Amino acid sequence: MNRKVIGIDIGGTTIKLGVFESGGTLAAKWEIPTRKESGGKAILPDIAASVRQKTAELGGTLSDYAGVGLGMPGPVLLDGHVDFCVNLGWGSMNPQEILSGLLDGLPVKSGNDANVAALGEVWQGGGQGYRNLVMVTLGTGVGGGVILDGKIWPGMRGVGGEIGHMHILDGETERCNCGGYGCLEQAASATGFVRIAKRTLAASTRPSSLRGIAELSAKDVLDEAKKGDALALESVETSCRYLGWALASVTMVLDPEAYLIGGGVSKAGTFLTEKIKRYHDELSPMATKKPKILLATLGNDAGIYGAAKLVC
Amino acid sequence: MNRKVIGIDIGGTTIKLGVFESGGTLAAKWEIPTRKESGGKAILPDIAASVRQKTAELGGTLSDYAGVGLGMPGPVLLDGHVDFCVNLGWGSMNPQEILSGLLDGLPVKSGNDANVAALGEVWQGGGQGYRNLVMVTLGTGVGGGVILDGKIWPGMRGVGGEIGHMHILDGETERCNCGGYGCLEQAASATGFVRIAKRTLAASTRPSSLRGIAELSAKDVLDEAKKGDALALESVETSCRYLGWALASVTMVLDPEAYLIGGGVSKAGTFLTEKIKRYHDELSPMATKKPKILLATLGNDAGIYGAAKLVC
Repeated sequence: MNRKVIGIDIGGTTIKLGVFESGGTLAAKWEIPTRKESGGKAILPDIAASVRQKTAELGGTLSDYAGVGLGMPGPVLLDGHVDFCVNLGWGSMNPQEILSGLLDGLPVKSGNDANVAALGEVWQGGGQGYRNLVMVTLGTGVGGGVILDGKIWPGMRGVGGEIGHMHILDGETERCNCGGYGCLEQAASATGFVRIAKRTLAASTRPSSLRGIAELSAKDVLDEAKKGDALALESVETSCRYLGWALASVTMVLDPEAYLIGGGVSKAGTFLTEKIKRYHDELSPMATKKPKILLATLGNDAGIYGAAKLVC
Repeated sequence: MNRKVIGIDIGGTTIKLGVFESGGTLAAKWEIPTRKESGGKAILPDIAASVRQKTAELGGTLSDYAGVGLGMPGPVLLDGHVDFCVNLGWGSMNPQEILSGLLDGLPVKSGNDANVAALGEVWQGGGQGYRNLVMVTLGTGVGGGVILDGKIWPGMRGVGGEIGHMHILDGETERCNCGGYGCLEQAASATGFVRIAKRTLAASTRPSSLRGIAELSAKDVLDEAKKGDALALESVETSCRYLGWALASVTMVLDPEAYLIGGGVSKAGTFLTEKIKRYHDELSPMATKKPKILLATLGNDAGIYGAAKLVC
């Protein structure tokens, strides 16, 4: 990495941008809103204008940069093509080619946002020192990223690492956002933790501190479980067992060195990862040497770090 | 591939060996018994003696060969070390180093037998033309091999591709050979097909042509299902659903181009693969472009082909 790079993480509400020095230090970060109207056609021009403005503010030009990395919320094919990005309003297009065109031909590389976040964590976050690792992001949904030999494994059609849509809750009758029934996301996203908690409460008449909470959140469920509320704990154990089960399946396929747990739900820390590890280990007895289960450390910045790493 | 190579597949009963010409043609193949007594200590000397004898018969010397590839039934670490090979009586050792020593320093490379078979099928069998593929061998057990970028992905501790030990039958009370409960192998190996058939028969009083068969085999179950026996068909559907489910999970992790089904049970052909595909596709709705589900073609020779490919 001899020159500066720019990392960009496009989310459904905001676009995060970061300038990284040649040594990999994050020198500046900022955000702009994601304008999704009219099929999201303003998003890439907005990014280009913001990049030009920031590079000028920093006293340089585009030619000072080796390139731009881009994380996007949806399946990204090997050549950067996306068939759709539902959350951005995008249909079939190649954002990395378009953005490169808007930035005077500056090289742009792109990937799925969860994959890119995993790369960021391996580069400068909780996954430092590992070259073969699977990251699971427990947020509104459950994202995932597979890093093999230090690089993103995006899969052949952009759904590599979509751990959240592994079928795990067999017999589930409610539909997942992906169109399936019984995806891991339905039990282990922030929404999933709440969903399992509500089911646990409904299936019992026992008292629980959760019963008094009007708008139950994953944080409530985890906080009350930590305080010892029996039903909250039972519910967290259920969600963690599904997570441990999914990761045990990944172990039997990829046998990675470690897992990295990120996203809002992961703020519950080792209270969460120790449970996931217990179920993972129980459900992968053939793996005599178990992978570690670690916590992500870059938070919302993982995406811009990983995007930068795509071009350095 | 400029010189001849030797491919060796060590099984619990016989050791298969093959000489491959520089162009990849199998020029000679033969077998020797696997002598497992006394911790299998005769196995590698037997192989070395047989290789020396055959190369002499073919009118050459060891120096005519670029190397020897070796497939072994157990987890093989990246450096060729095995902690154990239960079926051979082996404990912790490095067979590839030992065999190289016995063959005057001829290069020897090794891998897990199922992984090596997958490599063979990609090289000259049903997986030709694919560089990213997962093979599942439905035999006495369920083996698996992951091929990424044309190479075996063995995992960090030798359990990569152990598809047969993915946890799938949740709540299973019978124990799998691996020590776990509810592995795919318990439903989809030859033994697994029979096991599910016996359960299906026991759960119903309906007549079935299977009821008259004393020593039920997977072939019986599949043959009777093909003929239209309702309970046999129900049982095959159950096993295939577990298989399709496991492969759908692999798709959400690795997103390969194709799956390759091999082993004795795969002789049922497209009758089997079409069912697996139906369940796979149903349980991976996010993968809008589905991987193919193909049949292996090299049969019992896949191991020697793949072993040869390790050294050319």
